[in-house]
Amino acid sequence: MTKIDLTPSKLAMVPFISVDNMMKIVNTIGPAQMIADIASYIEDDFKRWELFDKTPRVASHSREGVIELMPTSDGETYGFKYVNGHPANMARGFQTVTAFGVLARVDNGYPVLFTEMTILTALRTAAASVMAAKYLAPKNPKTMAMIGNGAQCEFQALAFQETLGIETVRLYDIDPAATEKAANNLATSGLNVVKCPTPEDAVSAVDIITTCTADKQFATILTDNMVGSGIHINAIGGDCPGKTELHRDILMRSDIFVEYTPQTRIEGEIQQLEPDHKVTELWEVITGKSKGRSSSDQVTLFDSVGFAVEDFSALRYVRDQLNHLDHYVDLDLLADPDDPRDLFGMVRRAAQDI
Amino acid sequence: MTKIDLTPSKLAMVPFISVDNMMKIVNTIGPAQMIADIASYIEDDFKRWELFDKTPRVASHSREGVIELMPTSDGETYGFKYVNGHPANMARGFQTVTAFGVLARVDNGYPVLFTEMTILTALRTAAASVMAAKYLAPKNPKTMAMIGNGAQCEFQALAFQETLGIETVRLYDIDPAATEKAANNLATSGLNVVKCPTPEDAVSAVDIITTCTADKQFATILTDNMVGSGIHINAIGGDCPGKTELHRDILMRSDIFVEYTPQTRIEGEIQQLEPDHKVTELWEVITGKSKGRSSSDQVTLFDSVGFAVEDFSALRYVRDQLNHLDHYVDLDLLADPDDPRDLFGMVRRAAQDI
Repeated sequence: MTKIDLTPSKLAMVPFISVDNMMKIVNTIGPAQMIADIASYIEDDFKRWELFDKTPRVASHSREGVIELMPTSDGETYGFKYVNGHPANMARGFQTVTAFGVLARVDNGYPVLFTEMTILTALRTAAASVMAAKYLAPKNPKTMAMIGNGAQCEFQALAFQETLGIETVRLYDIDPAATEKAANNLATSGLNVVKCPTPEDAVSAVDIITTCTADKQFATILTDNMVGSGIHINAIGGDCPGKTELHRDILMRSDIFVEYTPQTRIEGEIQQLEPDHKVTELWEVITGKSKGRSSSDQVTLFDSVGFAVEDFSALRYVRDQLNHLDHYVDLDLLADPDDPRDLFGMVRRAAQDI
Repeated sequence: MTKIDLTPSKLAMVPFISVDNMMKIVNTIGPAQMIADIASYIEDDFKRWELFDKTPRVASHSREGVIELMPTSDGETYGFKYVNGHPANMARGFQTVTAFGVLARVDNGYPVLFTEMTILTALRTAAASVMAAKYLAPKNPKTMAMIGNGAQCEFQALAFQETLGIETVRLYDIDPAATEKAANNLATSGLNVVKCPTPEDAVSAVDIITTCTADKQFATILTDNMVGSGIHINAIGGDCPGKTELHRDILMRSDIFVEYTPQTRIEGEIQQLEPDHKVTELWEVITGKSKGRSSSDQVTLFDSVGFAVEDFSALRYVRDQLNHLDHYVDLDLLADPDDPRDLFGMVRRAAQDI
């Protein structure tokens, strides 16, 4: 019997970035540089905000946690992220959050990228923070407090060093081992790293406060007296219903900036406020429609929850790197028979292969 | 420098079934047997219908087509399918529909299967058809008409032969080349295959009519006078807004069975009817809550549009095969640092690897 060529066509192939290859990409480019690059992709996408199809995330809740799909599209490219959130995972030896993502062509529906996104989400979250801080932080910030020294901490620290010129980070975590871990990881970064015994100590005389704690309950990581005038607060950890970090009084005297209002009302710090409390969407600041920081004594707050467009920007950035980095493999994901109507024939011809 | 063991842990790995491996699975089990097996998985899942989280599909529409995510969960396992539908693709050398799917654990959110679903969707569609026909077709059906001889045709024919005992299929397609292709593929099946010059000829003296045409417009593949009493109609092709195959008069004298009423009202043949026209959901028939076929002269209609639970059943079936078939590869998809808080350290330690 003649051997038929069963090699899948190029059309059938989708580039896949494993965790191992994502780490190679991050280490080749450098984490701080890569976050800065992604920040500029996010900024570009926020400039064309109105183009995007902004679907709310599709959540499947269970007693143990949530699994979400976060799709969006700019009319040319479609992207989505799968992400879970399971607070009890850590105690059982699993990651609290894992994620992967897909980009596809809108014109024919073919996926063009499949990638791990646990690491990529950490980078894009830091990228969104520095992108917002560029418009909201006080001028020439030098010192940042970091309350919560978990998985997001080092990415934030390096991003603020690279993009905003932060020289000192003041670390605090309820678990000193987390602070120790972060300080060790940042030892060769060139940052002046200060381990602080209390949150009050951490926030003294800083320009920016980043909160990224993992507490599931309504928590008060910062109280009103801890926040001086002129500060920018980068609030990462309050990102789902029932999970907040800031005292309501801080919110009341801050100018609040969000990614996408309908989502942040449900998931962000502002779930504590009236549903009509004034907030400004970041894209309006970036396009000049609204003001960012307008005075030196203003308290600005980026109430960050993470939005599908930021994942889209990160996916777009990573796909562009595959033009010059070969840290991926092609997966034979798409059935591509010579005659589209002959799917059955394609399957049966492959029988010679087993 | 000491080489650290960077091998990803078993937890980080997700089994992936490529198109090539899916074809190996189908050919190892045999297409007809595999469809019958999936039909019994669908039947089992329909029996516990009320357990399922039934989210409507999340669609992103464009001028050229649609990209959809179809999630569902039974409380223990979560699944979703990515599927596109681009009618113009065929003329441009692409598949009209491509798909892939994921299963995950609800308790920790970790994906446990990533697989191609273009081929698997063809199998599950045929499986749903025979599962429905078991309850709805006339007794001992011997002859089936198949209007539309595209990608779904052979899977349906073999499924009805295997599960219902069909001996003769009467093929018709507007394009004789499609009929020729299907007849060739079925030549060694044991089925008596009759190529018919007209749809009227195809439906003469049959027990079951399967319609699976690809027409995008409101079309009338069957008119009322073509459908005799006692027939079961298995309507596959009318599956999105604006796409129907049957004349309204046929619907008016049929007992209509659907997968999930809210979705079928929008996508199925019944989009032609009043929104309160009586239909019966299949799970009610399977659990004995409602009657299926109740007389020999009744016309029954399965208005099939494809539902997330059927994909879930197919994914579940395929995952179970991986216990005894090795037609998959493990993908390093999940970042799994030894200390979940030390994602950054994991990334930086991998730098020695590049």
